[in-house]
Amino acid sequence: MKPFAQMTKDELSALKNGLESQLKSHKEKGKKLNMTRGVPSVEQLDLCNEMLSCLTSDDYKAVNGTDCRNYGGLDGIPELKKIFAELLDLSEDEVIVAGNSSLALMFDNVAVNMSHGVRDGTPWHSQGKVKFLCPTPGYDRHFTICNYFHIEMIPIEMGFDGPDMDTVEEMVASDPMIKGIWCVPKFSNPTGIVYSENTVKRLANLKPAANDFRIYWDNAYAFHDLSDSISAIANIIRLCEEAGNPNMVYIFVSFSKVSFAGASVTCMASSKSNCEHIRKRLSAQTIGPDKLNQLRHARFFKDAAGVKAHMKKHAAILKPKFELVNNTLQNELGGLDIARWTNPQGGYFISFDSLEGCAKRIVALCADAGVALTPAGATYPHGNDPQDKNIRIAPTCPPLGELKEALEIFCIAVKLASVEKLITRF
Amino acid sequence: MKPFAQMTKDELSALKNGLESQLKSHKEKGKKLNMTRGVPSVEQLDLCNEMLSCLTSDDYKAVNGTDCRNYGGLDGIPELKKIFAELLDLSEDEVIVAGNSSLALMFDNVAVNMSHGVRDGTPWHSQGKVKFLCPTPGYDRHFTICNYFHIEMIPIEMGFDGPDMDTVEEMVASDPMIKGIWCVPKFSNPTGIVYSENTVKRLANLKPAANDFRIYWDNAYAFHDLSDSISAIANIIRLCEEAGNPNMVYIFVSFSKVSFAGASVTCMASSKSNCEHIRKRLSAQTIGPDKLNQLRHARFFKDAAGVKAHMKKHAAILKPKFELVNNTLQNELGGLDIARWTNPQGGYFISFDSLEGCAKRIVALCADAGVALTPAGATYPHGNDPQDKNIRIAPTCPPLGELKEALEIFCIAVKLASVEKLITRF
Repeated sequence: MKPFAQMTKDELSALKNGLESQLKSHKEKGKKLNMTRGVPSVEQLDLCNEMLSCLTSDDYKAVNGTDCRNYGGLDGIPELKKIFAELLDLSEDEVIVAGNSSLALMFDNVAVNMSHGVRDGTPWHSQGKVKFLCPTPGYDRHFTICNYFHIEMIPIEMGFDGPDMDTVEEMVASDPMIKGIWCVPKFSNPTGIVYSENTVKRLANLKPAANDFRIYWDNAYAFHDLSDSISAIANIIRLCEEAGNPNMVYIFVSFSKVSFAGASVTCMASSKSNCEHIRKRLSAQTIGPDKLNQLRHARFFKDAAGVKAHMKKHAAILKPKFELVNNTLQNELGGLDIARWTNPQGGYFISFDSLEGCAKRIVALCADAGVALTPAGATYPHGNDPQDKNIRIAPTCPPLGELKEALEIFCIAVKLASVEKLITRF
Repeated sequence: MKPFAQMTKDELSALKNGLESQLKSHKEKGKKLNMTRGVPSVEQLDLCNEMLSCLTSDDYKAVNGTDCRNYGGLDGIPELKKIFAELLDLSEDEVIVAGNSSLALMFDNVAVNMSHGVRDGTPWHSQGKVKFLCPTPGYDRHFTICNYFHIEMIPIEMGFDGPDMDTVEEMVASDPMIKGIWCVPKFSNPTGIVYSENTVKRLANLKPAANDFRIYWDNAYAFHDLSDSISAIANIIRLCEEAGNPNMVYIFVSFSKVSFAGASVTCMASSKSNCEHIRKRLSAQTIGPDKLNQLRHARFFKDAAGVKAHMKKHAAILKPKFELVNNTLQNELGGLDIARWTNPQGGYFISFDSLEGCAKRIVALCADAGVALTPAGATYPHGNDPQDKNIRIAPTCPPLGELKEALEIFCIAVKLASVEKLITRF
């Protein structure tokens, strides 16, 4: 098939009719296929089933003698802190190990900086209208947190090695009300790109107008490589130290997509003095995280190497799904000049760009034919993609067969929406 | 021995010498005994050991088919919501089941009311200096939350059936900046008293000057009766409805002292519309609580009756400890007119009042002899007991033998501190 833009009106009309009937026949099958969320598949969850029963009536004590069944301990049992510290190449007093949701850690952190300020600062909310830089397309849940706290979101264009750093540097240096930036540095949600060492260095060397500016480093896919050539990400805590910005970054990592998304452990990392400050707050906030679940994780993974070995099992399940997406898109849409997409080496998403003004229509056509996608626009602040072109494809959950069917329908919808747009030119 | 106040100076001097040498000989034994915190004993924790391994590779689904290993669900799995609803005599849409720490639920709740206001209100922090009524002696962690948010604490005297309601009614009706009151309605921490039905009714029928006034109902010892005659507490949610204050109360309950203090589940209950509002916030705040641990609890307890039966096992362990405290204090201090104490029918604490100005001295004497107690004053806002007389005795954790020794030392310290005070009158 030739590029759509080179087609005549008649050719487009004929193509439109054909695509409509293809979509109709899919719809008539009445299937329900779901690609909305970056959710692990059952097969991935099964990898950790041993963890369900790995503790026993004789095994509930942490290495320091703590009875994990009882009160005590705020920032994680030693053996799990050790695993996270090793994974992140940090010391154990630079990590805080917590409960099930890293989103909750981020929310909390924004909440207390709004109400109380950073370690040695004044409350953000008392300083005026707080602003965050939001590389887009990005993760909708970050934007939801900003929205909840009435934080103004400034979209920053996302490149192939991180956000547009010229703009980031300029804005952060000139506006003291810019208090934060959201970063998913490795296999960014949804584009799948990895921040280059240069990007990380430039972030660490920012000269913020606000001395209480913070980088929210959501390293959600830190261990989620698909191939054996692991993507390395520079150690931003050390780089910040070297740059004279020792307290500027909060790192968040999660085992949600390592062990069980519904019963995981998470970790926050920052400078020693930030961690001390956070521990003080935690002592007012909670009696502590679930220590038995932390012990389960320590028993199951044993050490950092155990985590890395386990992630290869995830990769073996996920790689064929990512390949199927890329191959199907390539076969169905390649050379038509109506779309481009990423082909990430890890993470949970593929970012898909249609012609301008087509994303909502594609999602609607898919929904009508039984395929649920993440809402178009979700990857932009306030759900508003100004070009209406970005769609987040989440291929991890459906079994391969269902994914194949869903992708077929998706490609028909992309072609149909594109034809509908192009035909209006005549 | 006769009442100390009737003793001559010589008698007191002789007594003082004797007590000092008794304390010295205890100190020389070099024991370390701990009665600082309301912590379950190992024997109590063992009651739930089956829960450590009650899930299996075939058993991870909730009754509605939810795979508890995966994402999804914000307010608890259905079977656990059912158990809490039945225990609290509420409907399932009036409860939200969460993770390990009910303190975290309270902290969160205060935090969002400060920053965003109650369901239909304006942010508390934007209205001026927020005040909470704090029945005293009370729970130090409640005071810590107030302190963290710069909330002014107004002490309210605690009677035998709840806080001094005349004062509560008058203050709440006249000051719109009073936004909350902390209540531990059953086996109050530390006095162990139970709110009478009349007290609960008067609380439900408050006419607050602030339409965003809230009762923080920390029913931490809801199921923690020592005897078979269960202390009933009136259903404050229904009473608030009847009084035309349907959204005025947040209930908090915890299984920390039911299952494992280090790996528990907790529950918040309120009106349906408050719960709806809270669920909306939770969707921005977290990906949800640990569902596998919720399932573990549902499997282990089965139903509300299962929880109640389990609590009788706790009572069988705790009752002898509470009896030992009461009997020892009675034998050692009875008739001396230097102390009074409570004899609660449940909960985790005994509240002890010394002569005025003696509490800190008693705690210091005990510490010197190897017995760690909760710091004197901890039961008052800012740790400041104006009469320096209240001490919280936490008898649950030490084995009976250790508890006996600790109590012996405690009684000597009480007598010595009293003698030291009385002798200055001459």
